[in-house]
Amino acid sequence: MTTMTTTLHDYWRSSAAYRVRIALGLLGIDWDSISVDLTKGEQRAPEHLARNPQGLVPVLDIDGLSLTQSLAIVEYLDETRDAGFLPSDAAGRARVRALAYAIAMEIHPVCNLRVARHATEASAGAITMEGWMRAFIAPGLEAFEAMLDDPATGRFCHGDTPGLADICLVPQLYNADRWGVSLDTMPRIRAIREALDTLPAVVAAHPDRHKPA
Amino acid sequence: MTTMTTTLHDYWRSSAAYRVRIALGLLGIDWDSISVDLTKGEQRAPEHLARNPQGLVPVLDIDGLSLTQSLAIVEYLDETRDAGFLPSDAAGRARVRALAYAIAMEIHPVCNLRVARHATEASAGAITMEGWMRAFIAPGLEAFEAMLDDPATGRFCHGDTPGLADICLVPQLYNADRWGVSLDTMPRIRAIREALDTLPAVVAAHPDRHKPA
Repeated sequence: MTTMTTTLHDYWRSSAAYRVRIALGLLGIDWDSISVDLTKGEQRAPEHLARNPQGLVPVLDIDGLSLTQSLAIVEYLDETRDAGFLPSDAAGRARVRALAYAIAMEIHPVCNLRVARHATEASAGAITMEGWMRAFIAPGLEAFEAMLDDPATGRFCHGDTPGLADICLVPQLYNADRWGVSLDTMPRIRAIREALDTLPAVVAAHPDRHKPA
Repeated sequence: MTTMTTTLHDYWRSSAAYRVRIALGLLGIDWDSISVDLTKGEQRAPEHLARNPQGLVPVLDIDGLSLTQSLAIVEYLDETRDAGFLPSDAAGRARVRALAYAIAMEIHPVCNLRVARHATEASAGAITMEGWMRAFIAPGLEAFEAMLDDPATGRFCHGDTPGLADICLVPQLYNADRWGVSLDTMPRIRAIREALDTLPAVVAAHPDRHKPA
C-alpha cells in the first residue's frame, strides 16, 4: 500500500491500542512500535501531547498522517485498505457500529484507568478498582450478549468474517478476565471468542506479547 | 426518501438523543417522538429493552429498521441520505471521527447520568455530581480545543458545513453550561458554537424544546 513506515504509539495494556494492533494484524500491515508508558505518565509528556493533545494512545502514523482515536483509525484502515471490517450494506454497518459502540462508548470509557482511578481516589477508597470495573463490565457485556441474539450474528459478531465489533470485543474480554467478570451467562460471546482466538492477528495482538521486557 | 413514519425514542435531556435530533433536523426529516423518561426508569421497562437491550435512548425507527447507538444512527443517516456529515476524503473522515469520539468516547460516557450517579452513590457522597462532571468535561473540552488548532477547522469543526463532530459538540456544550464549566479558555469552541447556534436544526433540537409539558 505504502512504502512509508507505519508507527504505532502503543501501550501494551491499553484496550484502544489493542484494537488497532488487531486491525493492523488482520490487514497484514507491519508496524514499528513505540511504547508510551501510561503508568509512568508518558502520555502527558510534551512530545506525546504534540502528537495527541488528548494525551491518549494509540496514535498511528501511517500514509503520512498521524491518526488518533482507535475507532477512527480502524475505520480509516477499512476505507483505505478495503478491509471488510464493516459490511457493505448500510443497515449492516449500522448494526456493526452499534455493537462496537456498545463496548467502545458504554463500557470501555467508564473503565478507563484514568476514570476508575479518579473514582477510587475521589471516593477515598469507598470505591475499589474491582468494584468499579465489575459494576460496568458485567451489565455492559450482558447487553452485548442480548444484541447478538440476531440472525445476522455468525461465527463472528456479524457474519463469518471478523470486523469492527469483534475488534472491540477482544480487548473488552481481556479486561473482563482481568477483573474477574464471568462469561458463564454469555454463550454467544463465548462462542465468538473461541472463533476469534483462532485468528493469528488476534493472538499476536495480545497484551502479553507487547509488554516491555 | 421513504413514506414510512420515522420514530425517535427520545429523552429530552439525553445527549445521545440530542445528537440524533440535530442530525434529523439538518436533513429535514420529520419524526414522531416517543419519550422514554430516564428519571422514571422507563428505559428498563420490558417494552424498551425489547427495542434496545442496552436500555438506552435513542432508538430510531426508520426505513423499516430499528437503530441504536447515536453515532451509528448518524453515520447511517449520512450514508443513506448523502448528508455530508463526514467529508469525502478518508483523512478528513478520520479527523472528523477522531473529533467526534474525543467527545462521544472520552467525555460523554463518563458523564452519563448512570455513571455519575454510581460514582456519587458508591462513594457515599464523597464524590458530588458537580465535582464528577467538572473533572471530566473541562479537560476533555480543553483537549478538543487543542485538536481544533488545525487548518482544517473552519466555520465548523471541519470546514464550513456542520458534521459529525459538530453534532457531538452541541450537546456536550449544553452539559458544560449545565455543570458550570467555563469556555473562557476555548476560543475556537466558542466561535464554532456561535456558528452552530445560527442553524435552525440546532435551535430546534435543544432539550428545552423537547421537555415534556
